Amino acid sequence: MNKRLTRVMDWLAEKNVDFAFVQTKANVFYLSQFYTEPHERLVGIVIFPTEEPILICPNMEKPQAKAAGWEHEIISYSDSENPWDLLEKRIKGLVPTASVIAIEKEHISYTRATALLNMFPQGQLVSVEEKLYSLRLIKEPSELEILKQAAKLADFGVEVGVHALKSGKTEMDVLALIEYELKRKGIREMSFSTMVLTGRKTADPHGNPGLTEITGGDFVLFDLGVVLDGYCSDITRTVVFQEASEKQQEIYETVLGAQLQALAACKIGTRIGDIDLAARNYITNAGFGEYFPHRIGHGLGIEVHEFPSMSENNNDLLQEGAVFTVEPGIYVPSIGGVRIEDDIVITKDGFESLTKYPKDLIIV
Amino acid sequence: MNKRLTRVMDWLAEKNVDFAFVQTKANVFYLSQFYTEPHERLVGIVIFPTEEPILICPNMEKPQAKAAGWEHEIISYSDSENPWDLLEKRIKGLVPTASVIAIEKEHISYTRATALLNMFPQGQLVSVEEKLYSLRLIKEPSELEILKQAAKLADFGVEVGVHALKSGKTEMDVLALIEYELKRKGIREMSFSTMVLTGRKTADPHGNPGLTEITGGDFVLFDLGVVLDGYCSDITRTVVFQEASEKQQEIYETVLGAQLQALAACKIGTRIGDIDLAARNYITNAGFGEYFPHRIGHGLGIEVHEFPSMSENNNDLLQEGAVFTVEPGIYVPSIGGVRIEDDIVITKDGFESLTKYPKDLIIV
Repeated sequence: MNKRLTRVMDWLAEKNVDFAFVQTKANVFYLSQFYTEPHERLVGIVIFPTEEPILICPNMEKPQAKAAGWEHEIISYSDSENPWDLLEKRIKGLVPTASVIAIEKEHISYTRATALLNMFPQGQLVSVEEKLYSLRLIKEPSELEILKQAAKLADFGVEVGVHALKSGKTEMDVLALIEYELKRKGIREMSFSTMVLTGRKTADPHGNPGLTEITGGDFVLFDLGVVLDGYCSDITRTVVFQEASEKQQEIYETVLGAQLQALAACKIGTRIGDIDLAARNYITNAGFGEYFPHRIGHGLGIEVHEFPSMSENNNDLLQEGAVFTVEPGIYVPSIGGVRIEDDIVITKDGFESLTKYPKDLIIV
Repeated sequence: MNKRLTRVMDWLAEKNVDFAFVQTKANVFYLSQFYTEPHERLVGIVIFPTEEPILICPNMEKPQAKAAGWEHEIISYSDSENPWDLLEKRIKGLVPTASVIAIEKEHISYTRATALLNMFPQGQLVSVEEKLYSLRLIKEPSELEILKQAAKLADFGVEVGVHALKSGKTEMDVLALIEYELKRKGIREMSFSTMVLTGRKTADPHGNPGLTEITGGDFVLFDLGVVLDGYCSDITRTVVFQEASEKQQEIYETVLGAQLQALAACKIGTRIGDIDLAARNYITNAGFGEYFPHRIGHGLGIEVHEFPSMSENNNDLLQEGAVFTVEPGIYVPSIGGVRIEDDIVITKDGFESLTKYPKDLIIV
């Protein structure tokens, strides 16, 4: 039994939960190492306080689940079978009546939650998500190793983009080249839709890369990441094309200063909200407070945005092994926007930055 | 009021539903032309039998919603507000009590469904999904125009891939080049994870493109599509690299024959299951029945897999304006797999293929 499953089982026992049913791609992967996109088909794990866990998946996915290392029972089904019938029969064989069932309340459909309630009409549904997020928050050494490699590939993506900047190239030309070079290295998925923005579009948090040509004096903002072995990276760098105005340099230096302030606060025991505030106060003191509209960052791991949300009002304290982004930004509509984002891990001595692309202002 | 909203309103009136709440990306786009990926944030449309519909979205998305053409009320909220409180107040102002509420049962989270039930504890939840799917099934001329352009770009993707095949190139090299050329044309998103498979991997429906080099005698299978203005394309072509064995030719000709049989059945009034059977019987008669494990196709539109599922047991009849894929395949583990897939629309006179890349066996 892997430690992750054991921890969920212990929690179920402690909370008097009869069983948990977990069915999001990320949580199934975390608990089983089985990485699958089942679309509408049911793939899930039933976890009991003491019995062995059970995985359910379509027949044709069973070999992949085993290959991923799942050593426990698998219920598999054909397209003509109703997986809920099979699941009900098996669960009731182990737990004839259930009064408390833990589910991913925010990420299970009403139909699926209802199917569970129909099995046990007296059952009360509670959430298993907070528990799983708190486990996923602290990365194991094997996870950190992958996250470091994923971050290295994000650095490489920015490097490709910076080298590709030339008059007449469009945002999509540069974006296409970044992804081309990453895919040739074997990366199948970016962790989100790659962003290459130029000029005033850099000031729009909803800016879409398009066929705009790069022009002298433009900010160029890269925001990208890869999925490697199930783990995500996420980097942002902003450069200036050809020549930077004084105002652009002032904005850039302010964002960089704010990021360094926020990073200086990154150590075991810091209140998470204080990391946001470190950057926010710096930016406000420099007179750009109204142009920093978002939180300082977000957790990073199997999902590109995961627990915790690194916002001003988060009172949780940083723990060793937490991985998250630190990404202040200033967006002035008439000039453009700058964001600098790194992925970091909290270590015994402070933090380590997983992304390492240079941060001094680059004028291409 | 757009016709799509009117049709939903008429349906609500007919079924005595007090209101519908729609919150998936695809259905929000279909009803409002507002295309957004709100992640965890709530974006949705409340539709009443007679009152004007209301859209709810974060403050910062309000301008996009209006720009997309939404002419009705918008409730927008900041990160510090609870959107459900705003929604409850507004809905209750129009509908003090609700006994029937229509939701996307399969695609709304348990938390969100519960939030609606908490507003109206006596309310009964019914599904609005079948109605929306049946509306989305029949494409309007403006939608067909986009689908044709999206299909043309899919053709182009295959063309790039076929031209890129060379000894020593890997699956990911070819895949990277296809996406590079499409992205330079302004395509931001593929409609699903592009597949370029070679050799025996073509026989694995779960094959992942990797760093395998293309070798003489390999089948090379391309399965790809783009998202253009919110609509998807999806094409598969299989070619042979350098020289084809007799068995490969036999498999290829059988799949092509099966596809032509299935296409010949594509006209107004055909039972959908009979399209699947036309291909399946052809393949079975050729002795490959056990190697065609999937349905003949799926609906195509805002989502790459949408209603209807084109399987043997589907008794619905084809209607003019339906767009779907026709994609028989034969996968022999020891040899490899062939799939040929087109996107087609049912017309007054039969069907039109939106994808047009040649289908005779190409030996590169």
